[in-house]
Amino acid sequence: MMAKERFNERLRRTCRERDSLLCLNLDPETARLPAGVARSPLPVWRFVQEVLDATLPALAAVKLNLAFYEVLGKTGWDTIERILAYLPGDVINIADGKRNDIGNSARMYAEAYFSALPFDAVTLNPLLGIDSVAPFTERPDRGAFILALTSNPSADDFEKRRMGRGRLCDEIARKCVEWNTRGNVGLVVGATQGKDIRRMREIAPALPFLIPGIGAQAGDLEQAVRSSHADRRSGTLIAAGRSVLYADSTNDYAAAAGREAARLCADINRVRKSFR
Amino acid sequence: MMAKERFNERLRRTCRERDSLLCLNLDPETARLPAGVARSPLPVWRFVQEVLDATLPALAAVKLNLAFYEVLGKTGWDTIERILAYLPGDVINIADGKRNDIGNSARMYAEAYFSALPFDAVTLNPLLGIDSVAPFTERPDRGAFILALTSNPSADDFEKRRMGRGRLCDEIARKCVEWNTRGNVGLVVGATQGKDIRRMREIAPALPFLIPGIGAQAGDLEQAVRSSHADRRSGTLIAAGRSVLYADSTNDYAAAAGREAARLCADINRVRKSFR
Repeated sequence: MMAKERFNERLRRTCRERDSLLCLNLDPETARLPAGVARSPLPVWRFVQEVLDATLPALAAVKLNLAFYEVLGKTGWDTIERILAYLPGDVINIADGKRNDIGNSARMYAEAYFSALPFDAVTLNPLLGIDSVAPFTERPDRGAFILALTSNPSADDFEKRRMGRGRLCDEIARKCVEWNTRGNVGLVVGATQGKDIRRMREIAPALPFLIPGIGAQAGDLEQAVRSSHADRRSGTLIAAGRSVLYADSTNDYAAAAGREAARLCADINRVRKSFR
Repeated sequence: MMAKERFNERLRRTCRERDSLLCLNLDPETARLPAGVARSPLPVWRFVQEVLDATLPALAAVKLNLAFYEVLGKTGWDTIERILAYLPGDVINIADGKRNDIGNSARMYAEAYFSALPFDAVTLNPLLGIDSVAPFTERPDRGAFILALTSNPSADDFEKRRMGRGRLCDEIARKCVEWNTRGNVGLVVGATQGKDIRRMREIAPALPFLIPGIGAQAGDLEQAVRSSHADRRSGTLIAAGRSVLYADSTNDYAAAAGREAARLCADINRVRKSFR
């Protein structure tokens, strides 16, 4: 039997073959759905489907922040199932849920997100250490992006505090390098973190980065692409959400989302190809 | 209009009125359900209902680890709704899901767990700082137990590393004291952490503690009760799960769970009343 392709290798191949580093955050807020969609029976699903039809050509990956589905109750689970069934196999899908926990509970979450729902990768919070991460990295073909330095202002509360040879975020990145024994661990580094993205890349030269914070959160796209060495083989996904989903609030939203995704994909490619 | 009772005050009153500090972890594993239950249409719900009927007199609170429900898919959400509707109003219920995230997403989770599902309190992971905690502490009558020092071995990876004037877990406890402006913040401190429980209590003398790790994880009950000053007005919940749920694997499970819960409640009370 041929060994399955490791997640990080698949991610790099996907970005190369689709000529895109763009990850679309599918985080639809019921209150912001266009009027025409809001009246349909499964409004969030209809909105996501139409946005996908328009944006898929520009995407390497999609990321579903589970909060936006969980708030819908049972309908949210249905909606996720439909989205996963609809996505083409050569686009990576990520469950952004930070769902780790200690031993027994982490195994349940891994079963929920890698089996009950067939996600390719998850996001995880490293605070509880390797016990809470290991159940998600057992399968080499499934990935785990671990929060190292987040895009929010209170990342200063703990992540940027001094620890060991540097700061907590540096120590997290070092542990992630150590935990990457199966080629399926990556880092989440906020696009708003400026020159700290470069520091994370120095510590973890070979790990894929998932970089949210472009667009609505106003992180600098060019700096994110340059600092993460998005041109090299390490792998980088640049994630955007609201600026694409809500590019136009009229019923022209899907076409507008498609144009915005294509523009972001091209902007990212222009920067990364300029220094190759 | 009378102001609503603050969560921490309600918790202390509940423990006093029910003469119990015991929190039952309702974390049912499908694979471990007794044969008689496994064949019923909603087996997890039937199991939990029968366990509750037998254990409620000994409990101050129940805690649902959401992993064990999420792995059931849509049925899991149904099961949680039934459990919350079944619980008497004078028993505290806690959603153990560590569901926090940055800004927008955290607000969605708060809506999911304090409105769509009417939980009294949640558990949260502090790594991302106050931005990820604040949406859960806005309502004084709803509580947030924040992971300070967990019961798993890899708590050493980050939580016990040096930071500031002590260790990361000490800094977390200090921040939680600062964040408790509405009387609804508590700490999660593992029962397996021995003398560190006392250190957490020194830093946060007035915050309620939620202490898991008694029973299957073999934390020391007497030390947990003494070190957390469970006799004082600060408030302590001692949580046990598997040792109660699976006290007997035959169809006598509910009666056995009831006996084990009563024994734990009495053991905890004996210790805390011995040094009052």
